Parts: sequence; structure tokens; C-alpha cells
Amino acid sequence: MASATAPLKDELDIVIPTIRNLDFLEMWRPFFQPYHLIIVQDGDPSRTIKVPDGFDYDLYNRNDINKMLGPRASCISFKDSACRCFGYMVSKKKYIYTIDDDCFVAKDPSGQDINALEQHIKNLLSPSTPYFFNTLYDPFQEGNDFVRGYPFSLREGVPTAVSHGLWLNIPDYDAPTQLVKPLERNTRYVNTVLTIPKGTLFPMCGMNLAFDRDLIGPAMYFGLMGEGQPIGRYDDMWAGWCTKVICDHLGLGIKTGLPYIWHSKASNPFVNLKKEYNGIYWQEEIIPFFQSATLSKDSTTVQKCYVELSKQVKEKLGKIDPYFDKLADAMVTWIEAWDELNPAATDLAKPPNGSAK
Amino acid sequence: MASATAPLKDELDIVIPTIRNLDFLEMWRPFFQPYHLIIVQDGDPSRTIKVPDGFDYDLYNRNDINKMLGPRASCISFKDSACRCFGYMVSKKKYIYTIDDDCFVAKDPSGQDINALEQHIKNLLSPSTPYFFNTLYDPFQEGNDFVRGYPFSLREGVPTAVSHGLWLNIPDYDAPTQLVKPLERNTRYVNTVLTIPKGTLFPMCGMNLAFDRDLIGPAMYFGLMGEGQPIGRYDDMWAGWCTKVICDHLGLGIKTGLPYIWHSKASNPFVNLKKEYNGIYWQEEIIPFFQSATLSKDSTTVQKCYVELSKQVKEKLGKIDPYFDKLADAMVTWIEAWDELNPAATDLAKPPNGSAK
Repeated sequence: MASATAPLKDELDIVIPTIRNLDFLEMWRPFFQPYHLIIVQDGDPSRTIKVPDGFDYDLYNRNDINKMLGPRASCISFKDSACRCFGYMVSKKKYIYTIDDDCFVAKDPSGQDINALEQHIKNLLSPSTPYFFNTLYDPFQEGNDFVRGYPFSLREGVPTAVSHGLWLNIPDYDAPTQLVKPLERNTRYVNTVLTIPKGTLFPMCGMNLAFDRDLIGPAMYFGLMGEGQPIGRYDDMWAGWCTKVICDHLGLGIKTGLPYIWHSKASNPFVNLKKEYNGIYWQEEIIPFFQSATLSKDSTTVQKCYVELSKQVKEKLGKIDPYFDKLADAMVTWIEAWDELNPAATDLAKPPNGSAK
Repeated sequence: MASATAPLKDELDIVIPTIRNLDFLEMWRPFFQPYHLIIVQDGDPSRTIKVPDGFDYDLYNRNDINKMLGPRASCISFKDSACRCFGYMVSKKKYIYTIDDDCFVAKDPSGQDINALEQHIKNLLSPSTPYFFNTLYDPFQEGNDFVRGYPFSLREGVPTAVSHGLWLNIPDYDAPTQLVKPLERNTRYVNTVLTIPKGTLFPMCGMNLAFDRDLIGPAMYFGLMGEGQPIGRYDDMWAGWCTKVICDHLGLGIKTGLPYIWHSKASNPFVNLKKEYNGIYWQEEIIPFFQSATLSKDSTTVQKCYVELSKQVKEKLGKIDPYFDKLADAMVTWIEAWDELNPAATDLAKPPNGSAK
């Protein structure tokens, strides 16, 4: 770690999708200022986004995306925070933390400000245990261990690819639940982290999420949402389903739980319902598809896994709606764009004819 | 529920295996006194076990077990707390709570005494969600719900068969971990409950455990441990592996997490090591066996599942050690004894020739 206060300072980018001035960063200053920010401006590119002084950042608007990706920019959503995945692609760092601009610093039960990023880094730097459930949760947390009956051969764990953090105050509910329970607030601080077991899918929320870009980056595509698309608010879900299937295939882990952020404001449930209704319906078929999806032994890299998955999406989900044909194509485009911006380190390092020692 | 203070009073037995006077009940009096206790006395049957005044209980010692089960008593362990499962068999109630006699009332972070039984009952009476992970944990907890992206078709959940509670102070570690970390104490109060996903095994601890006897009772066999057996401290693990496979097959749920009890005293790690060493070695083969075990469609009852599992144990684990042959036979004996003491309600209710209306 780079320093006690800013671990992985030179190896982590913070990706923020936004349409407004980033005043919310003031509250995060003690925690975020040491890091580089990648701001992905959504919507009208002529609008100016103000970033508080003292932050080190790059800002990309739609013009930049179009310029950098050319025709492949079609795979990046417009007028939807799904555009954030462009930030994952242009980053050159090993780790990504992404956060929504309506998320603030939460307090733990003792009243201390929670350094969400530090906890994510702890999660990412310690192994995951997807093959057997530990009843005291993450055995790599301080003061924890594996309980009696946990097989010793599984205690080494596997590399952690994703750290999924949670939200106090406004829970991440779908529109129907928002409508039914407008006043519900999440006040339950659950003081733990756990690995989501192999073979189990989960609803990955992009509000407060960290991942190891080297391990899983190309699977973190947030799909086609927003303008011109029949669906919204399923960007992170899509990424989560694909990522989980690929992590399971490649022997990587996903943790969920701590850290919490303070989610300040519920989005409009009526607007959300309009974005979600297709997804709510479609997910009843999408989830069984991902639950039974298997990848071939030849898919040894995230890119290969993702392209294989895109073929299965086209074949099996294409019949739900033509949207999935388009999405499957966009998945391939995304990988092409990723590879163009990120020529594989191994390919570059490999000498011609493998002759070097 | 029977009353606000003693829910399910007439439908739940508390099963306690012991070799000593039950002074620990004094601390539990406000919570346990309304319930019927089944005390299974282990070891020398001529010894007298003192039970504090005012508790309603039946006590069974080895002589009683031998008398009631005859030759089938061989399936009940001796000189090991695995004998507790005899209590499950003689109970006539729908629910069982079992607790060790070195477990005391824990306090929650606000300093309040935890009514463990009440929380177990909440867990058992609300559905489980084994088919998809909810990131805010048990959606049926107060103030919780399903998060965005949780398929609506899965929100009804499935009946909960088991509620697995945890332990503050002395964690349930194996002997090697006890030896390496003699001073480690569990101080982390994790304020949640969650369903263990389908297809995932867990180490079930018998210290603080509740279950629905009607749904899963016959799977709660604690195996052959203690005197004359090459293994100890795997009684609850065995029950947990079998129970999980059967719950997954029958569409039942298992929850873990709250409530906590206060585990007062670590058992002797040297003694434990002697009991455990075969298990530590064998579990490396046992767990893959259970991870891949599947049951046939014909196994529609817990008993049928359990007998089918016993055949697989004989066939696949018998080659590890002759012990598993003996255990497989004992599994069948257990089911025979269970059925003898618990003639199926449906069989009794069925009139001869099915002629009644």
C-alpha cells in the first residue's frame, strides 16, 4: 500500500458518471483527494461540470467518447449512468472504484466517518471463499477465521475480483418497491463482508462498487441503456450477472457487504418504473439463462468468456426481444474497444518467437 | 404464536444434551421456562442431573434410550453430545431448539439480553430465499426488503427448515485453529440473517440451532461419534451436510446469522484434536461427495432422501474407511427408529382402503 491514508494510491482510479457539478466530492475530500478521478460526463457535452479544486481528474464527455472510440462508441450508453463503464475502459490502473454522485460519507454505529474506499481495498486485497460458506462470514476480516468444519484445502481462497458495497438511508429498491414503501430507509448497519458462493447470482449495484480491472475489467460492461434503448436501471445488473458467471468460471471471488455509503435521495419511482418495466419482465427469463450458463474450457480469459457469453445471449435471449441481439453485438463491440484501448500486457511483453529469456 | 413472551410455546421443545447439572438454565429462565425441555443425559446413567426448579422437562439417560430403541439404540452416540439427536426423535413437537449447556444469554450492542429463541422462531416462521442472493440479506427482516434486480417470481421464497445461530466470545473453531489462536474471541456482532444459497454447503454447528422437525427432522441425525468411534466433533457437521443436500433437493431453506448466544468456555484443544484428526482428513473427501450428491425424483420425503443418501455414503465414502459403512447402516437404523417412534401422521390419518371422505 502506498501510504496509511491512501492505500493503492497509484493503482486505483475512481470513476464517477455525472450530469452535474461534483459538489458531493467536498464531503469525500479526505478520502478521495489522493486518488485520480475519471469523470464520465453524461448528456449534453457542451455543459460544464464543475469539479471542486484540488482534485486530480480527467473528464470525458460524449464528444471525447465518440472521438476515442469512433463507430465503436455505439456500445457506450447515452443519457444513462451506464456510460460509466467507459471510464473503466480508459483507466490504466489495476483497480477501479465507482460511486454515484448522490452518495455521501456514511457513519458507522460509533459515529465515525466510514472510509469506504479503504474497506473496498481490504476486500479486494484479501481472498474470497466461494466454494464453501463460512458462518462467521469473511474469514479474512480482523478477528475472524474459518470455523470448525471448514475444509483446510479451501482455506487459501481465490483472488477477489469484485467488492460490492452497500447503502445506508435510501436502499436500492426497484420502482414497484419504492412506490409501495416510499418511506423505508435502511438503518441496519451489518458489520460484515462475505463471499457470494459459486453458482449463486446476485443483484450487483453500481452505486458503490470496486473491482480489480486486471482480473475482471472487460466483464464490467454496463450494457445498452438510456436514450434509444427499451430499458434502463439494468446496467449494473447486467454487468453483475455476466461478471458472476465469468468469475465462477475463472475461479475468482466476489465479496459483498461493508463498506456502506450514505445514499441521499431516492430517484423518482415513476421515472424508474418506465425505465424498469421491461427489465422486470425480462429478468424472469434472463436470470434462469445466467443461472444455467456455462462457459467452455477454451474461454481462459475474461475477453474470451465475454465473447462466448455474447453468443449465448444472442442465441438464447434474442428470442425475448430484438434488443438482446443488439446487446449481444454491443458486447462484442465493447470487447473490441477494450482491447484496442488496452493492448494486452502479456502480448506486449512477449518477445517475438518467444526467444527471449 | 401462543403469547408475546413465549411464541410457539406448545409447538417447540428445547433439547439439551448434558453430563452435568443444568445450572446454566438459571440465566435462560425468562426465555426457556415457558417451554418443555428434553434433556438427553450422556455418559453414566446412574449419575443424577440436577435441573433448576420450575422447568418442565423430560430427562432421558442411556438406559432410557436402550429401553426405548432396543437394538436400534446402537445408532445413538454414547459419550458424545451427538446423543442429542435422540431428543429430536422423541419429541412430538413441530419445532426443536437445541443448545449446549455452556452457552449463556448474550447481549446485543445496546446491552440488551438477546432472546435467542424468539429470533430463531422469527427465522423459522419467515421464508428463505435460496435461489438468488439478496444483498441486504434476509428480505423478511424488519425494515428490509428485496433489492432492485431481485426477480419477482422468487420473492415468495421457500419454507425455512433450519435456523443456525451464532456465538459471541468463544468462536466455534477446530482444534488446530484453537491451538494457533488460543486468545481469539468473537466480538463482532453481525446484525443480520441470511439464507445459505442452494448448492452451497456450510459448517452447521449444533450449539445454537433450531429447526422445523416436521420439515426436516429425520435428516438431523448426528451420526456415530464418541465411545467406540474413530471420530468426534463432526456430529453436527454430518447433520449439516446431509440436511443441506436434502433441503436443496426438497426446496427448503436454511438461514444463518442471528441470534447469538454467549459461548462461555473453549473446550480443550488437545482433546479436540484427538477427536477431530480423522474428520479433518476425511472431510476433504466427504465435502466433494456432498457437493456433488444428487437425489432422485422418487425421494419425495426426508426419510426417502436420507435412505438414498445412506446408500451413496456406503458406496462412495465406504472406501475411505470402514467407519462409513457402519455410519451408512446407522443412518438407516436411525430412520427406522424415527419412523417407529413417529408413525407418519398421514399414514395414521388414512382410513383403511382409502374409503373415507
